[in-house]
Amino acid sequence: MERLPGFRDFYPEPVPHPDLWSADARQFIFDRWRATARRYGFREYDGPPLEPLDLFTLKSGDEIVGQLYNFIDKGDRAVALRPEMTPTLARMAAAHQRNYKKPIKWFAIPQLFRYERQQKGRLREHFQFNADIIGEASPAAEAELLALLIDSLRSCGLRAEDFVIRLSSRNAWQQFLADHPPQSIAGSFSPPPGVPAHSSSDTQSAIAGSFYQFIDKLERNSAEENERAAGALGFKLEEINQFIAQGSPTADLELIVNNLRARGLGEFVKIDYHVIRGLAYYTGVVFEAFDKKGEFRAIAGGGRYDNLIALISGGKVELPALGFGMGDVVLLELLKARGLLPKFDAPIEFFYAIEDEALREDSLRRVQHWRDQGRAVEYPLTPAKPDKQFKRAQELNARFIFKLERGEDGKLMEKRKDLTTRQEEVMAV
Amino acid sequence: MERLPGFRDFYPEPVPHPDLWSADARQFIFDRWRATARRYGFREYDGPPLEPLDLFTLKSGDEIVGQLYNFIDKGDRAVALRPEMTPTLARMAAAHQRNYKKPIKWFAIPQLFRYERQQKGRLREHFQFNADIIGEASPAAEAELLALLIDSLRSCGLRAEDFVIRLSSRNAWQQFLADHPPQSIAGSFSPPPGVPAHSSSDTQSAIAGSFYQFIDKLERNSAEENERAAGALGFKLEEINQFIAQGSPTADLELIVNNLRARGLGEFVKIDYHVIRGLAYYTGVVFEAFDKKGEFRAIAGGGRYDNLIALISGGKVELPALGFGMGDVVLLELLKARGLLPKFDAPIEFFYAIEDEALREDSLRRVQHWRDQGRAVEYPLTPAKPDKQFKRAQELNARFIFKLERGEDGKLMEKRKDLTTRQEEVMAV
Repeated sequence: MERLPGFRDFYPEPVPHPDLWSADARQFIFDRWRATARRYGFREYDGPPLEPLDLFTLKSGDEIVGQLYNFIDKGDRAVALRPEMTPTLARMAAAHQRNYKKPIKWFAIPQLFRYERQQKGRLREHFQFNADIIGEASPAAEAELLALLIDSLRSCGLRAEDFVIRLSSRNAWQQFLADHPPQSIAGSFSPPPGVPAHSSSDTQSAIAGSFYQFIDKLERNSAEENERAAGALGFKLEEINQFIAQGSPTADLELIVNNLRARGLGEFVKIDYHVIRGLAYYTGVVFEAFDKKGEFRAIAGGGRYDNLIALISGGKVELPALGFGMGDVVLLELLKARGLLPKFDAPIEFFYAIEDEALREDSLRRVQHWRDQGRAVEYPLTPAKPDKQFKRAQELNARFIFKLERGEDGKLMEKRKDLTTRQEEVMAV
Repeated sequence: MERLPGFRDFYPEPVPHPDLWSADARQFIFDRWRATARRYGFREYDGPPLEPLDLFTLKSGDEIVGQLYNFIDKGDRAVALRPEMTPTLARMAAAHQRNYKKPIKWFAIPQLFRYERQQKGRLREHFQFNADIIGEASPAAEAELLALLIDSLRSCGLRAEDFVIRLSSRNAWQQFLADHPPQSIAGSFSPPPGVPAHSSSDTQSAIAGSFYQFIDKLERNSAEENERAAGALGFKLEEINQFIAQGSPTADLELIVNNLRARGLGEFVKIDYHVIRGLAYYTGVVFEAFDKKGEFRAIAGGGRYDNLIALISGGKVELPALGFGMGDVVLLELLKARGLLPKFDAPIEFFYAIEDEALREDSLRRVQHWRDQGRAVEYPLTPAKPDKQFKRAQELNARFIFKLERGEDGKLMEKRKDLTTRQEEVMAV
């Protein structure tokens, strides 16, 4: 009986096989995400991993269905395993935002699912640290969110030489489009093969949609491909490249960078208009975090999405919002590659040896005593030879070995040996 | 857009509506489960929430399909959201048990899913603390597992007056069946209506299966119903009631109770042969934890299942095993009813007020300083009046309010006010 392809088993360390994942390493990054979010005043939320299919098609269009784990449940509902958290967050925030002071600062660590047919060996689930700020239009919110993103990575041991956040803004590209209106091709706009038109009926927005997808692929495609695609969209590649090379910050981006500099975090960001984000729903600043050596896919990505909550709530609630997602897979790969994952031992502090079975019940009493004191204690469940017990204590990386002995006066003594210093202490119990 | 019926949204406290669930309370019990498991030397694991359907039918028979979220995925695989963790654990342990020293002590906190058509308002998902010991046949393992169960509940604040674990054993009932062979009814065994025969072709085991289901319902049904059902199975209700009332412990149960007494945990268990557990796969000791007032469903349940790993591994691996599951729903209801859930405030320690916008950048620097020191710090993202900032600090339950001021000598001073004692301190920064 095998697990499904694209899904992961998480084992305690040491993980028996390179194809398996470490439950300890996963918990290590979850703990750091959670602790950092709390230092920033973000509160935890969660929603169902299974949602109505409509929640996702409403946001992303029907095309997304091909990538979903979707099915009809026994109550005839069209449902899907969540491929991302933002629609659920928008649903939850829209329903009860009145009860929370703005700005709402929330985080979650959901497991997300995508059925991707083509890529062999590609994962079909991952965990994602999601942090969002809702109800604040000022770019001060972007700065706060980016500081959280930076510190989440720093809390895992990553430094400025390891990663950088590339900051961009759709507003900058909107300005570019206004300054460089596309040349009409054969009188009407039609996207080139492989660049699907945005589903909006608004031509302006359709141009922007196709243009954003073109920019998104700019670094991956060859110069010739880019030249051709730019021309097909009615733009000059040279002007686009010039605009990116110049990288003049918008007013928002300038404010964000200055804010981060004031915190001493300026070195973690740079303006880079290559970044545009594939998703249609971003409305302003967008960003992606990358490892500086360029060995991995994006570590995290996000941006502002001021229209989504209105869309999900059917226009009932309008709130500006922004957020990011950071997956566990790339982060764990990066931490491993940089030697930043600690050695995960069993959490045992005390090994309570039982060499005299007549003292088993007294030993159990003392095991309970130390566990009640908050100590992680292991002991032999069944009779075992002293050397085997000692070996087990070492395997478990216990700091101390305990054992009971009865003195000549009939009184019990508890012996404690420090396995690091080899020092022994004796206490009457 | 609504969430699916039977699924829960978890909101930060204070939760806006009694129908919604608290993400903070959930994290509170997760933290306590995890910390207690570690004190007992249990290691964390996890598997996929989606598994091949066969994994569950192999263990529980085809009848379980009616209660599953199952579907055909885009690769034509029959899959199901996990309704319980034990099959996944058995699959994972069987695959790599050679790499782990016995006994294996593992825990997980999975979300589990069941599609139950009939019950309105009944949840279709819950989280469950699962702890298992694999590779130890001695009842010393039961005692260790039960001690963990007791301490998991104690760590949430529950006491001996709040809950008790009812201990039983299928071996005791096997002995009863041997001592009281069922009277043949019309020459052959056939289960009464509503008591389906166990799927095994072995008559002995079929009798045991139907008998266990009868015992399982004994407390819920009326005396007349029980009389009738006992007769239909070929037993005398009086003998069954007598056997339960007598409650003579098996050798295993005696050892377990003595072991727990040695730890000072004897008051948390009692032998009660009413408990038999519905699931077919238990092989020895079984147990359930209940609130003493009898207001709630079982808090936790488990037992020994020595044959399951062989079943799941197709006979490749044979290992004795036992475990328990404790759901979040009943536990949260019980803790709430007993007033044991703490007040969950925002985690803020410091509120950094910014009254002079000229000092915003310096204030951001100090916010970062304190967050770097591990403090949870909040501040106004945008300019706000001092009284509004003070009110916000109080809402967030901040312990200290900070602010920067520039002295007459032009130097910056950081003022810190303790909101509990009203004491103020000033530091040059």
